[in-house]
This record gives sequence, C-alpha cells and structure tokens, in this order.
Amino acid sequence: MARGNHPRTVWQGPSWRLIAEKVTLPDGSSIEQGKVEHPGSVVLVPIQGVGADLELLMIRQYRQVLGSTILELPAGTREWGEDWLHCAQRELREETGYRAERFTLLGEIWPAPGMSDELMRIYLAADLSPDPLPADVDEQIELKPMPLSELVALASGGELRDGKSVVGILRAAAFLALS
Amino acid sequence: MARGNHPRTVWQGPSWRLIAEKVTLPDGSSIEQGKVEHPGSVVLVPIQGVGADLELLMIRQYRQVLGSTILELPAGTREWGEDWLHCAQRELREETGYRAERFTLLGEIWPAPGMSDELMRIYLAADLSPDPLPADVDEQIELKPMPLSELVALASGGELRDGKSVVGILRAAAFLALS
Repeated sequence: MARGNHPRTVWQGPSWRLIAEKVTLPDGSSIEQGKVEHPGSVVLVPIQGVGADLELLMIRQYRQVLGSTILELPAGTREWGEDWLHCAQRELREETGYRAERFTLLGEIWPAPGMSDELMRIYLAADLSPDPLPADVDEQIELKPMPLSELVALASGGELRDGKSVVGILRAAAFLALS
Repeated sequence: MARGNHPRTVWQGPSWRLIAEKVTLPDGSSIEQGKVEHPGSVVLVPIQGVGADLELLMIRQYRQVLGSTILELPAGTREWGEDWLHCAQRELREETGYRAERFTLLGEIWPAPGMSDELMRIYLAADLSPDPLPADVDEQIELKPMPLSELVALASGGELRDGKSVVGILRAAAFLALS
C-alpha cells in the first residue's frame, strides 16, 4: 500500500484547505499527492406542485471556476461542525428564497473522491413557503423552476452537466415514483 | 460581479494544480479563492452480456483521500492534451484488463464546479476482450462485475456513494433501455 508522510497544509481557503503529502509507492519511488479537506456540503431538491405539475426549483448560477453560468440544484458548503439540516435550510433560503417544512435524505455522494474528502448530502425539500435570507455576496443566482419530467430527460440524456444535480434529480424521481 | 486578481499557482501535482486568486466582492471586501485546474477525466461503463444477464464491470478501489475502499466505475485522469478516446481505452485496460471495440459517449459532467474545472466524459464501453495493461503503481483495484439491475437500485436508492458512478450507471440504463 502507498504510504503518506509529512502532510503539510499548502493552502487554507474560506471553507476548504489543500494538504500535500509525500507518498512512497510500492516500487520505492515517491510522489507528492494533494488532498482537499472539505467540511461537506448539502444539495437541495426543492419540489412544489403534484403529479404532472411537479416542479423542481433549479437555479442558474455563475461559476467563477468555469467562467460560465450553469443550470444546477441549489447547494452549498457546510460550515465546519454545522448541523446538516441547519445548513440545508440556510442554503435553501439563501439561494431560492424559500424555506421547507420537510427534508428527506436521498443519500450521500462523494463528488470527487480521487482528490477531495467532500461528502454531499442530498435532501428532498418539500412544503415550501417564502422566507428569504440574503444571498452570499459572491453569488449570482437566478431561480428557475422546471418540470421534473423535463429535468429527468436532461439528466438521463446528458444535456445537464452538473454532476450533483444529475444525481439529485434522478434519485428524487425514483423516490417520488415509489412514495 | 466578483473580480479575480493576481492568480498564483499554490501547488502543482502530478496531474492537477491549485490556483489561488484574490477576489474583490461587490461590497468592496476581498477573499482569496482557490481553483483546481484539471486536465479532465474519463468514466467507463463497461458492459457484457445481454438482457437480464447484462453486467457492468465495477471495481473496488482503495481511496487514499477517504481512507477506505469504495465501489465505483473504472475511471482515470487524462494526461494534459491526451486524446479522450485514447485515455478511455488506456484506463479501461489498466483498471479492468479488458479493451473495448465500441465507445459511446453518455455525456459529460462537472463533478465539483464550485472548486474545480474538471470535466468528466462518460463512455459506455462495449464489445470487450481481454487485453490488460499494467495498473498504475499507486492503485489497488479489484474487479467486481455486477448486474445492471442491481446497480440501478443501488444508484437510485442512495447506497452507492460515488457520484460519477451514480451518473454513469443511470445514464447507461436509460441509454440501453432506448437502444
């Protein structure tokens, strides 16, 4: 097994940090590997309406890292140690202007386990009512409600490119079909 | 809009690098944001058998970042500038010991667009035959063929936690149902 030595913090950002450590490989050579230590994040699948009228509250958000605006589910980074449901309600209110009375966990995912220990918890958010919180000052978000059926087609067919959103939409569709 | 200034390379690893830059927010304050620059990666959905006997070649891989072994689809990082299909065939042979005669693109995803510009291309890999390449020296991989129907249940239900694998399995199931 590869062994790691002398981890050092290379960079500490507002929420996550990069650790680098020298790893000795089975053949005796060594490389320096990077690992992002991350507090985790929440992904929200906010639903309104029923049956064929069921919609998800998607957002269009400018992503500085990509240099473009993308279609995605509301989501956000947890504070270190923050209660997960507190984080879910806070991010929902900040990004959509709604609060939910009911959250249902649709499982967790690691978005990038080759590089980062980030764990995302995905929540269905139901029984919505207006209750906005100010958005983060560095975020540019436009709310975009869309029919679930259309989103399932985009997620399955490949047109939707945000990974967490593909997972959240398809898990929500499976859950709602069974419930 | 937030503006970035003075980007600097904080860390350069074997495949990706971390850039940090000072960003001035609309309220005049500033923070340093981190951005991973990544060459991209491929995700393989290798299939064998037909109908109810259809299996995917999953792997169990030790993930140093998580400190545990996880169930996932074969995948790997592209070399900077490497042809995508060349990368797909190489990673398939390294991680499963099989080559594919037919690759079908199932779309792309950004696994972590808040932090990284990594783009993953997902390929269905069919018409498999044994043709191994030596595995990367830092990887510990066990091949694990599993029925597609079982994997769809794990991916939809939340038991499967690797994000790219959830997307790859559910897109492959939708594609195969239509083709």
